[in-house]
Amino acid sequence: MLEDLKKKVYHANMRLVDEGLVVLTWGNVSGRDPATGFFVIKPSGVPYGLLKPRDMVVVNLEGHVVEGQCRPSSDTPTHVALYRAFPAIGGVVHTHSIEATAWAQAQREIPCYGTTHADQFHGSVPLTRYLTETEVDEAYEANTGKVIVEAFEGTNPLERPGVLVPGHGPFTWGADAMKAVDNAVALEAMARMARLTEQLRGATEAVKKALPAYVGEKHYQRKHGPNAYYGQK
Amino acid sequence: MLEDLKKKVYHANMRLVDEGLVVLTWGNVSGRDPATGFFVIKPSGVPYGLLKPRDMVVVNLEGHVVEGQCRPSSDTPTHVALYRAFPAIGGVVHTHSIEATAWAQAQREIPCYGTTHADQFHGSVPLTRYLTETEVDEAYEANTGKVIVEAFEGTNPLERPGVLVPGHGPFTWGADAMKAVDNAVALEAMARMARLTEQLRGATEAVKKALPAYVGEKHYQRKHGPNAYYGQK
Amino acid sequence: MLEDLKKKVYHANMRLVDEGLVVLTWGNVSGRDPATGFFVIKPSGVPYGLLKPRDMVVVNLEGHVVEGQCRPSSDTPTHVALYRAFPAIGGVVHTHSIEATAWAQAQREIPCYGTTHADQFHGSVPLTRYLTETEVDEAYEANTGKVIVEAFEGTNPLERPGVLVPGHGPFTWGADAMKAVDNAVALEAMARMARLTEQLRGATEAVKKALPAYVGEKHYQRKHGPNAYYGQK
Amino acid sequence: MLEDLKKKVYHANMRLVDEGLVVLTWGNVSGRDPATGFFVIKPSGVPYGLLKPRDMVVVNLEGHVVEGQCRPSSDTPTHVALYRAFPAIGGVVHTHSIEATAWAQAQREIPCYGTTHADQFHGSVPLTRYLTETEVDEAYEANTGKVIVEAFEGTNPLERPGVLVPGHGPFTWGADAMKAVDNAVALEAMARMARLTEQLRGATEAVKKALPAYVGEKHYQRKHGPNAYYGQK
Repeated sequence: MLEDLKKKVYHANMRLVDEGLVVLTWGNVSGRDPATGFFVIKPSGVPYGLLKPRDMVVVNLEGHVVEGQCRPSSDTPTHVALYRAFPAIGGVVHTHSIEATAWAQAQREIPCYGTTHADQFHGSVPLTRYLTETEVDEAYEANTGKVIVEAFEGTNPLERPGVLVPGHGPFTWGADAMKAVDNAVALEAMARMARLTEQLRGATEAVKKALPAYVGEKHYQRKHGPNAYYGQK
Repeated sequence: MLEDLKKKVYHANMRLVDEGLVVLTWGNVSGRDPATGFFVIKPSGVPYGLLKPRDMVVVNLEGHVVEGQCRPSSDTPTHVALYRAFPAIGGVVHTHSIEATAWAQAQREIPCYGTTHADQFHGSVPLTRYLTETEVDEAYEANTGKVIVEAFEGTNPLERPGVLVPGHGPFTWGADAMKAVDNAVALEAMARMARLTEQLRGATEAVKKALPAYVGEKHYQRKHGPNAYYGQK
Repeated sequence: MLEDLKKKVYHANMRLVDEGLVVLTWGNVSGRDPATGFFVIKPSGVPYGLLKPRDMVVVNLEGHVVEGQCRPSSDTPTHVALYRAFPAIGGVVHTHSIEATAWAQAQREIPCYGTTHADQFHGSVPLTRYLTETEVDEAYEANTGKVIVEAFEGTNPLERPGVLVPGHGPFTWGADAMKAVDNAVALEAMARMARLTEQLRGATEAVKKALPAYVGEKHYQRKHGPNAYYGQK
Repeated sequence: MLEDLKKKVYHANMRLVDEGLVVLTWGNVSGRDPATGFFVIKPSGVPYGLLKPRDMVVVNLEGHVVEGQCRPSSDTPTHVALYRAFPAIGGVVHTHSIEATAWAQAQREIPCYGTTHADQFHGSVPLTRYLTETEVDEAYEANTGKVIVEAFEGTNPLERPGVLVPGHGPFTWGADAMKAVDNAVALEAMARMARLTEQLRGATEAVKKALPAYVGEKHYQRKHGPNAYYGQK
């Protein structure tokens, strides 16, 4: 079932490798099927070089495997939580990409220092709270989803299509699996640029001299607003 | 029309990818036709992997599309402003390349720390002022061109073939589209070298111990002066 | 003899190059044969581009060449010491990979700043003591093995499959040669992430805000513990 | 004439590109013919993608072109000075490789922080003095050679096969053109490792905790000393 979506999710997973976001088997992409509500996700711990479209696993929103020979990614319950809480999203990505993970390990939001960031995210890249020890013990991956959802309460998750989990790494999402990968690529570049910006100015001074809000707003709106004029059509 | 120039501008755009200056669809190159005064530019938001020479858009110096099925780059009004103000240039490049963008986000000129820089730029890489909120609201991209032109008042833009727009990123130019790309590549390397130089010395000390002016002058002149002896012929 | 193992060790050596862990001829991988107790190792100083499976050298646990036309890696006595002291390991890797070597040169353990690290290493990446001048003079490479073994006294070397030798670089190991390479790849990524984490927070603050132990434990156990659920089967 | 050497020098030049040491056309390699005393060098300013073995220029030790259609590298007089002063060397490389150039721009020697460095260089990587304004005016490239030779007075240039010219970049050399490229590759890696080492410790502390001299000596001697045992034969 969902053979077309499996191919798309397979290609989205392989693109993580091409974009340099993956070390060993770290990282996974899923994509949702609007008709059934199921999603398709990478199997756990399979080397990318051996991955085939038919290895993709179909999972429902209770987190149960609907079809597939392999175990789904161990992060599957996080994907479930995101799909349940954010009905508008159709794809989820988790990586340990170096630059975004460094911000997560530093336990810092990524401030908006420029238009590259403003083009993609409406405001800073948020940081969730740490899970409590009880939350880790009870349902680590599901509760990782829970703290992400908490961090977006009252906001539109498509306006800030990603988040950092402290001490862990980034999750991104989008309208479909490939757009979620676009956002993972953009986040990694934004994270690197922000680190270098602070290196060139010092962190305190960098924050003081952040991008004027009206420039950031202009960039976000020209790409994503009601009168957006970036791109075709 | 201008089929040859479209091919050249297409190849100049693709070279941005090969040189590692591009993330996703960020970045655009244009090239001017000396006979008609029109220029050819990349379409907005088209993935580089799908780009074809025939997608290039022909634009006149009023910023109107003369020929093309696609929308031109959303930065087209900036290109227009540069071609109007700088008659000697035949190509313009805009990227969000990581190292140059980090200097732009840090809102700093790039000082001349060595001969690599002096070989390409006659003096520091300038930084424009920020646009005012009114300038952003009225004509963001055209006014981006305006503040660049302001920053070069009274100087020869071919002696410093590039600039940083604060909180945004670099623009470079040259005698044609491919030479403008050469300058984008050089700027990225200069930006990286300058950051590492400051890391190894501290910024204050690095500025104090800048390249002696007579060495910089020698390098610029041996490559670009009336008695230049670098290169063939 | 051991033609299959030679091929495996050859491929493990070549993968060091593919993973970007190697400059010039620096780096070597060996793999142990459980039946004979011999191990197969890269020859010394042969460019990777010329390496063939048949160049691999068979060595016994006294460090004598059992078969092979070439001299074994000059680090062979270190490999011998590790195989003798750690019966559970089946592969050893030594590289001068940039990020891990920088930590070794800085003479610092790598603290556990996140789950990427906790997924691979149960605790920090240890640093051995320096060899004394006498130990260097008497048997440099064998004594390098000795100080590594000292650093793991009373611990399970498979729970922390790697180490930094101060002023020198990393050694990693694993159940076989390819798994030892996996650990070298992971160590390089962890080392880079840890450096960037400290850059973003300052080293002191980073150490104070290290990953909560219960999160690290969860990650290590979900991948390597008795009830591990990462990966297939 | 010297068709074989031209091919070798061509391949040595192209390897600079493969090793990531080259931006645009920056960098050149030459190789000496022991029989005639002539050397073969890259032409000035030719893009690497267009370079052919037959473009290589034959030059004598007075710096005159003996054979060739193209102008030789503008750095040819520096190569002449090195070949005249250092009879044991058979190849010279100049690059603007990023990490080594950053040290040159920071106007600092590269201290020996580890065995990777000690394996290649017997002591720190020296830094020449700046040329005076008169030396720049009179014969910039020849005098660049002169200050390099000064910096090695009384030492064996093959024991420290490279140097940094302040505000400019590295020169390396070796027994032949390809070995000089090996040393350029090694220098770039050493420069990067040393920068990261200082980042992880702070520069002052890093210098205080430099590699013990007896470990450095051991590494240099096991590779280059009378009883060297690294490599084959």
